[in-house]
Amino acid sequence: MGAKVDAARVIADLRELQDRTGDDRGAQRLCWTDTWLDARTLLGEALAELGAAPETDEAGNLWARLEGADPSAPALAVGSHLDSVPDGGWLDGALGVMAALGVLRSHASEPPPRPLILVDWADEEGARFGRSLFGSSCFSGTLDPDAVRDLTDADGMALPDVLSTHGVSLDRALESGHRREGVGAYLELHIEQGPRMEAAGTRAAAVTGCVGVERLRFRFAGQASHAGTTPMEMRRDAGLAAAAAALAIERLPTTHGGVATTGELRLRPGVPTAVAGEATLSVDLRHPDPEALARMLGSARAVCETAASERHLVLGEAPVWRIEPIPFDAGLVAAARDSCADVAGEAAELESGALHDAAEVARVVPAAMMFCPSKGGISHAKEEDTDEADLAVAIEAFGALAQRVLKREAP
Amino acid sequence: MGAKVDAARVIADLRELQDRTGDDRGAQRLCWTDTWLDARTLLGEALAELGAAPETDEAGNLWARLEGADPSAPALAVGSHLDSVPDGGWLDGALGVMAALGVLRSHASEPPPRPLILVDWADEEGARFGRSLFGSSCFSGTLDPDAVRDLTDADGMALPDVLSTHGVSLDRALESGHRREGVGAYLELHIEQGPRMEAAGTRAAAVTGCVGVERLRFRFAGQASHAGTTPMEMRRDAGLAAAAAALAIERLPTTHGGVATTGELRLRPGVPTAVAGEATLSVDLRHPDPEALARMLGSARAVCETAASERHLVLGEAPVWRIEPIPFDAGLVAAARDSCADVAGEAAELESGALHDAAEVARVVPAAMMFCPSKGGISHAKEEDTDEADLAVAIEAFGALAQRVLKREAP
Repeated sequence: MGAKVDAARVIADLRELQDRTGDDRGAQRLCWTDTWLDARTLLGEALAELGAAPETDEAGNLWARLEGADPSAPALAVGSHLDSVPDGGWLDGALGVMAALGVLRSHASEPPPRPLILVDWADEEGARFGRSLFGSSCFSGTLDPDAVRDLTDADGMALPDVLSTHGVSLDRALESGHRREGVGAYLELHIEQGPRMEAAGTRAAAVTGCVGVERLRFRFAGQASHAGTTPMEMRRDAGLAAAAAALAIERLPTTHGGVATTGELRLRPGVPTAVAGEATLSVDLRHPDPEALARMLGSARAVCETAASERHLVLGEAPVWRIEPIPFDAGLVAAARDSCADVAGEAAELESGALHDAAEVARVVPAAMMFCPSKGGISHAKEEDTDEADLAVAIEAFGALAQRVLKREAP
Repeated sequence: MGAKVDAARVIADLRELQDRTGDDRGAQRLCWTDTWLDARTLLGEALAELGAAPETDEAGNLWARLEGADPSAPALAVGSHLDSVPDGGWLDGALGVMAALGVLRSHASEPPPRPLILVDWADEEGARFGRSLFGSSCFSGTLDPDAVRDLTDADGMALPDVLSTHGVSLDRALESGHRREGVGAYLELHIEQGPRMEAAGTRAAAVTGCVGVERLRFRFAGQASHAGTTPMEMRRDAGLAAAAAALAIERLPTTHGGVATTGELRLRPGVPTAVAGEATLSVDLRHPDPEALARMLGSARAVCETAASERHLVLGEAPVWRIEPIPFDAGLVAAARDSCADVAGEAAELESGALHDAAEVARVVPAAMMFCPSKGGISHAKEEDTDEADLAVAIEAFGALAQRVLKREAP
């Protein structure tokens, strides 16, 4: 029942994809563009050769099905996303789709015990309209059409208009959720997009889940004043309060675990000749444990309050985005860990600090992921890369995981 | 020889000026605009009534002269600037010009012992083209025409073109320096634009000089990376290095005196989801003592170097602007102090943390200034204000200073 996945062929498919849809600045598979459609055409041709002609659902997700020996058994879905950020990397998303194609190919000559589905989620990156995980959140039912209806791209084109040129009606996109029926499990291979596996020498790892995120902006309001005429002791410098808060927030993971980032800091008036009267500091906190994440958020608020009160400033807070930690299915994670041990020689696991389609899918279908290392931890750039030897190990481990799940009584 | 300056009349002139050239957002006497010309028309009419018809020099500065009993004696020049920032205050610059008008008016019926000149410097603020002290630096000879030739305003109009519509040729503007001949002293009344006098209850103070300024930008170069996938211990966060440097720079005046400001901090990519790979921090250091200012700059460099090396970043530095401390003429400062004691009851003095036309003038002519308090230290805003009672004391003290200097053997 099915041969080993041909990793070399998967890597060759990835190279061809990059040749046909990338340029010297990197991958250009921006969703809802002609180049993205070119990528899907390449995928569709390969699927048709396997007798698994693709179809597109109400959210623009691409589905292709190899019938199982038992057509009524719960299906295994494998996939990721072909779309990329502009000037992106050759592996982000594409690796998971082409590895899934490899899994289907390994079963083309003999039907798998249960149906095997490839899915290419639409607009994972959200690079054009700012809303990530579009297709998978339609599938899971968490997308609110009214929350994205007014989004426009850099050229001012509206999301619903662009969707409709691709045959997608925003108001019908959640009907994609009907596809959940009959899907028993979802598996996704992805690059880590971080430096941990490379540093540890790990070539394939089970992903235990996606961290929760608390993202908000703190606003420190002081008093703008003249850089030359305001004595130090009479200043209410909002920029320095934000600086002190940022340094304190950096120390939160020492106590709580997780990661904390203050990547955006804006001063007003923001000129060399004025004490900053206002500062806006973004805080992005991530943790796999919901209670630890909540404690971390409480501590972040406390350090901002301290920084503000020490300088007699007024502190405000605005939410940006939040998502609870999403653990993957324990049985599938164990299967992934075992497959890593078998193929890569190490039962490695880690949580994902980035969001993925699998996190949306996991809300409604048992799901898990596998990671391979990213050189230098770099992603979303043309420098994004993984050694072919490491890619091959991870692709084979992912194929072994799919085999393992297909063989189970219920996936 | 001359009556006391009529402070009430000066204040009435200031109110009329604001009525005719301001609006509900504040003063609108932006240099090289019709509203600025309206302000000069008002001034010109008042001067003509005194028999001191104004003329404009090669840099656009306005001059008006009351002949002295001894026409060949060195003249006393008094003045400031009518131009304002957009949405500015009613007193910044205008106070000194209208007080100077008051000094001339007090001598209109009987000639002063030596010539008495009013000067309204052109474009002190630099609000339209970004170059402050235009007219006074032409007078002093420090303006480099080539350094400002390519400046444009927000509408893309070039400085030389705008100057020429006002009859000013950039290439001849330094000929304004011929006016130095025969000027023995320059005096200027201005608002403090800071909170120190209000805090001390001082109504008029001699200004000992203008502080020196070292203004530069430090650039911290680290590594941009994903906020979710980069472990804390593997980050090279340029924003946090800049934050640490800013907090250390704030402490420099404790050791060195002076003031230190970090009013501009820009992060790249500057988004909540990425560790900042690059941070640019402006540093503005001011001190009345050149050696202390140099030590302060050395310390600022050292703390930036420490902040960068602690996070394995590369530090760069770019100059923005610098000016050495400019002390005013000791004799004139003493005369100003004595006048403050006589009229305001206190021989107060302070240095100016802001630059003024008098600093440029002081390079070539003995000069001094007198300050009056600014409510709340606020300037460059419509809220800029000084109680009329305080204004009256300062105007009378300035009038007494002018009398004192006019009476001296050589001013």
